[in-house]
Amino acid sequence: MIKKQRVALLGCGFIGDVHATNIVTHPATKLVCVADTDSSRARMFAQKFNTRETTTAMAIQDDSIDMVLIASATPTHADLLEAAARAGKAVYCEKPIDLSLDRARRVADVVRPLNVAVTVGFNRRFDLSHQQLKQQLKQGVIGRAELVQMVCRSSEMPPIDYLRASGGQMRDQAIHFFDLLRWLTDDEVSEIAVMGSALAQPEIAKFGDVDTSILMMRMESGTLAQLDNTRRTGYGYDERISVMGQRGLLESGSQTTQGVTCYQGVNIHQPGLFPDWFSRIRDTYYAQLDAFVQSLSGKSVCDLPGLDDGLKAQAIAEAAMESLKERRFCKVSVGNW
Amino acid sequence: MIKKQRVALLGCGFIGDVHATNIVTHPATKLVCVADTDSSRARMFAQKFNTRETTTAMAIQDDSIDMVLIASATPTHADLLEAAARAGKAVYCEKPIDLSLDRARRVADVVRPLNVAVTVGFNRRFDLSHQQLKQQLKQGVIGRAELVQMVCRSSEMPPIDYLRASGGQMRDQAIHFFDLLRWLTDDEVSEIAVMGSALAQPEIAKFGDVDTSILMMRMESGTLAQLDNTRRTGYGYDERISVMGQRGLLESGSQTTQGVTCYQGVNIHQPGLFPDWFSRIRDTYYAQLDAFVQSLSGKSVCDLPGLDDGLKAQAIAEAAMESLKERRFCKVSVGNW
Amino acid sequence: MIKKQRVALLGCGFIGDVHATNIVTHPATKLVCVADTDSSRARMFAQKFNTRETTTAMAIQDDSIDMVLIASATPTHADLLEAAARAGKAVYCEKPIDLSLDRARRVADVVRPLNVAVTVGFNRRFDLSHQQLKQQLKQGVIGRAELVQMVCRSSEMPPIDYLRASGGQMRDQAIHFFDLLRWLTDDEVSEIAVMGSALAQPEIAKFGDVDTSILMMRMESGTLAQLDNTRRTGYGYDERISVMGQRGLLESGSQTTQGVTCYQGVNIHQPGLFPDWFSRIRDTYYAQLDAFVQSLSGKSVCDLPGLDDGLKAQAIAEAAMESLKERRFCKVSVGNW
Amino acid sequence: MIKKQRVALLGCGFIGDVHATNIVTHPATKLVCVADTDSSRARMFAQKFNTRETTTAMAIQDDSIDMVLIASATPTHADLLEAAARAGKAVYCEKPIDLSLDRARRVADVVRPLNVAVTVGFNRRFDLSHQQLKQQLKQGVIGRAELVQMVCRSSEMPPIDYLRASGGQMRDQAIHFFDLLRWLTDDEVSEIAVMGSALAQPEIAKFGDVDTSILMMRMESGTLAQLDNTRRTGYGYDERISVMGQRGLLESGSQTTQGVTCYQGVNIHQPGLFPDWFSRIRDTYYAQLDAFVQSLSGKSVCDLPGLDDGLKAQAIAEAAMESLKERRFCKVSVGNW
Repeated sequence: MIKKQRVALLGCGFIGDVHATNIVTHPATKLVCVADTDSSRARMFAQKFNTRETTTAMAIQDDSIDMVLIASATPTHADLLEAAARAGKAVYCEKPIDLSLDRARRVADVVRPLNVAVTVGFNRRFDLSHQQLKQQLKQGVIGRAELVQMVCRSSEMPPIDYLRASGGQMRDQAIHFFDLLRWLTDDEVSEIAVMGSALAQPEIAKFGDVDTSILMMRMESGTLAQLDNTRRTGYGYDERISVMGQRGLLESGSQTTQGVTCYQGVNIHQPGLFPDWFSRIRDTYYAQLDAFVQSLSGKSVCDLPGLDDGLKAQAIAEAAMESLKERRFCKVSVGNW
Repeated sequence: MIKKQRVALLGCGFIGDVHATNIVTHPATKLVCVADTDSSRARMFAQKFNTRETTTAMAIQDDSIDMVLIASATPTHADLLEAAARAGKAVYCEKPIDLSLDRARRVADVVRPLNVAVTVGFNRRFDLSHQQLKQQLKQGVIGRAELVQMVCRSSEMPPIDYLRASGGQMRDQAIHFFDLLRWLTDDEVSEIAVMGSALAQPEIAKFGDVDTSILMMRMESGTLAQLDNTRRTGYGYDERISVMGQRGLLESGSQTTQGVTCYQGVNIHQPGLFPDWFSRIRDTYYAQLDAFVQSLSGKSVCDLPGLDDGLKAQAIAEAAMESLKERRFCKVSVGNW
Repeated sequence: MIKKQRVALLGCGFIGDVHATNIVTHPATKLVCVADTDSSRARMFAQKFNTRETTTAMAIQDDSIDMVLIASATPTHADLLEAAARAGKAVYCEKPIDLSLDRARRVADVVRPLNVAVTVGFNRRFDLSHQQLKQQLKQGVIGRAELVQMVCRSSEMPPIDYLRASGGQMRDQAIHFFDLLRWLTDDEVSEIAVMGSALAQPEIAKFGDVDTSILMMRMESGTLAQLDNTRRTGYGYDERISVMGQRGLLESGSQTTQGVTCYQGVNIHQPGLFPDWFSRIRDTYYAQLDAFVQSLSGKSVCDLPGLDDGLKAQAIAEAAMESLKERRFCKVSVGNW
Repeated sequence: MIKKQRVALLGCGFIGDVHATNIVTHPATKLVCVADTDSSRARMFAQKFNTRETTTAMAIQDDSIDMVLIASATPTHADLLEAAARAGKAVYCEKPIDLSLDRARRVADVVRPLNVAVTVGFNRRFDLSHQQLKQQLKQGVIGRAELVQMVCRSSEMPPIDYLRASGGQMRDQAIHFFDLLRWLTDDEVSEIAVMGSALAQPEIAKFGDVDTSILMMRMESGTLAQLDNTRRTGYGYDERISVMGQRGLLESGSQTTQGVTCYQGVNIHQPGLFPDWFSRIRDTYYAQLDAFVQSLSGKSVCDLPGLDDGLKAQAIAEAAMESLKERRFCKVSVGNW
């Protein structure tokens, strides 16, 4: 009989719901309590998942809790992560650690010596198709990576209030792909250049954000990488990664829904892409939880993003913002932690 | 708050496990008890699904039970269906009603006047892609159906003991597609011709079975249909249906797993088909349960296969076996119930 | 410097034009003269191809002619083939040799001892994709063939006068695939069963023809084969062959035109199939001419359809017509020439 | 009867051969004479195409010549273009006008007032699939263009001597896509940033060239564009363009060869991309010749690249080289001619 990890979930919003479902479903985790700054929301949430409501402070102090999953609002991540780590809990923290890279580094400096298990929510690493890509790349199927191309396009413009608090497209959207790029290539970004525009919603330019951006990166090994981010397409959620190497191309392509193809006249009509980001990446949340739980029971799990991965992706995002703003190539230094 | 259907599950084998998981997961069903001729198997099963063990007799008599799901061995279906219906239960019965069409008809004659809800396990009707096909066909996207093509190919040869008891490829495998053909076209088969061979496992010819068969059918409206069945491919599970109409072609095609495409040299290598039938059709069991539950709460659900659908598909299978054996065209009469 | 084959072309219709273009383009053939029963048509044709007009009789007697290409009306094939062979010419004869199998056999009996090179126009053997299929099959990529599926669907209903003189769908359309089946599998058809209807143009039922037919064949080795023929689709020209073997599936699939894919909303719209049979198989005429010319210069060319191939495909067509008419399984005997 | 354009072809190398074949085949052009600095090469070439050999000077002075096609070495383009234009000939000039943008501008200043028809060899505009893309874009199928992505990857590294004289990857390879980008979007590039490396053949770094490069461009309208160029892939020739607009995505994708698909085990193996650039774009040379000839007979032909298109693409290439070398964003000014 496996010992179940006893989990406290902090944050009862959309992403909290996703995590709660996974914790309940996973055979090696038990959802012991949930907390939210809005206690009535926490109460309904607790009822739905047949668990109890508590406060974040009490959850963190509770000796019976093994793991804390932080899915609350971004500005609370740093404090909660630090507190949970000090209390000796394993921590699964949604990204980012903090919108301020400085603050994030200080938290990391506190947490690192505490030697607790921490994973940061770069769940796209757990996409089955991206994982196959990494595996084949490591096996040398196409030789050394020379050119990486990544596409990240959401189907719907998020609400403007979300965007205003998001930290901008680099810190909110591109950051997942900075992590994927580092992870896939086992390499570090050394230089970055970014162009962007507020094409879909010009209003966001007022607070310095963009909704359509293109990026070039040079890796330390010489590999080149391209990325584009858009906030709304007219054709569903489009996430793709391809790597051209010395001897071929590996492609983790756009994923479509299954369905009927209609051949008619001079055209063929097929089912389109997943309608939104969530239907495309839903399974990766479970997969990361599973990997984290396995690592806690002593298994070696190689793809788990840690604190440093969180910091390094943020450092790239900072350089990206600088390049975007100042229209120049920027150095990225992620290696000195 | 919805009233949950209280379900007794009869049969704790592989397919029973599938149904148990769905009953536990579905918000409007509760797995109240399970039974199996092998009581130690039932006990472990009950423990796994956190429910109680009972006998089939007691389950059927239990007044607190609303629905009986029959997932036991084929020879027990007819008696259990009749008993459960007499006890006033809603019944979800795995196909076939009985290997003997005569016996199946007699059961149906008993059950029909009892006016209980009965559905027979032709779950492939609930494949999302096939459903889209039917919907577009009904909407007239391609006009009248002229030519239907169906492919049903399992990846692995079943054990020879399974085959010996299966009733043969027509009654065990093709029967699902007899039902799909009737359902998709809202039409009846009037004539059938079959060729078959024991190519993959010549041994099964000893008891008159084949593992590779091709079929032609003429529908009452004049529509023509082709079907092939194989028991093992070297390339995964292949299920496809296409309908050519007056103005185009609708295709519910082979479904592949998502993954990495590798472009190398003069070839492109893509992820293949689903490895086995179960990974391809797993979701249809839940969908049929859901449809049945909805029908019980008074919703009109148009795709639910009933007793007569079970009998008609079997009647086609009987004619198919006759054609296969006697190498001649055979009439099918399914309309006279 | 290669010696050019000096060619007389008999028949200046549509297919004559195709052959004339190829003869003019091919580096090892010269179009010396053309003939047609309609001499004014022959005159214009000769002018277009910068050659001279003659009569069929004079063309066949002309000692300077090496090869005669018979592209005239079907009822003239037999006489012209016999005359050209007697005159010692190499003969490329469009299919069929004669609509009457008896007459075709008698011609073959005359021509065979004359020992001239003869090829019959089963040009689909020279489709690049079908050739790859045959090659991979012979190499054993998927082991022994178990199930062959062939689709032959024209985009437009031919004029009714054409159909009335065509000999019926089996002799006019399916016959190409009888040849392909024999060629691909190096096997002979032993039994056939056919269903058909006049769905697209019910009028043709008056002279006993069908426009939609499905066929089952059993090969001598036990391999099973399916074929369907339709005269008009609403979605372009659809020709496909797939072979399932012991260890996989080879597919020479529907061919599409190149062009733009549009991702929009919940759909993906792609360029459709080739608009008609000719755009799909145009290149095969040249390829067969080339193969024939190479064989004349002594090269061993393995795929050239000969007199016997013509007769055997016709023998299958005869059995198919019998099965279609009498609704029964028919034996095919092609081996006794 | 159409009046045939009488053409002199200057340059008898590989690309001269392509043009000669097209001139001979086109119904409205006649290959009157050919010239090359290597007169023995010109002689053999003339023999092959059944025409006569001459010198460039004599060809240009020949009053019977209507059109001069310049397919000679790049350094000779400018002088020949100027001379042919002064002699009143229509000129089809292979790109670039001159490797020096200054020199190219001076030639253009001379040629423009002479009012002769001139087209520059940006033949990729005549790719059928790219043309469909432009047409659908203009029709507003996806609304305003927001993000353009272009991939240009050759299959084989050219000989180092070719590269040394080529002017570098921006002027030799990327330039076609600078033209395509302007043409597709009816927009001008305003800013560019480039990263590149000599990954496939490090030796070319000695003369300042790269074989793998990625580019970002901002268009005057705000549209963003990405491009990558590589000199050798391990998977054939890969040319693709996609445009994301407000309401969807148009994709002129990688083109594959037709052939057999093999389903085996957990993979599907398909025919790969065209083996090299020439097999992919061969038809565009004919199409541009045809468009030019039609324009000469007074038809309005909208896609013909003219002198200014040549200069503007080169101006972008110059800015690209500057960005590549100096690692900074560079302004592009193409509008002031």
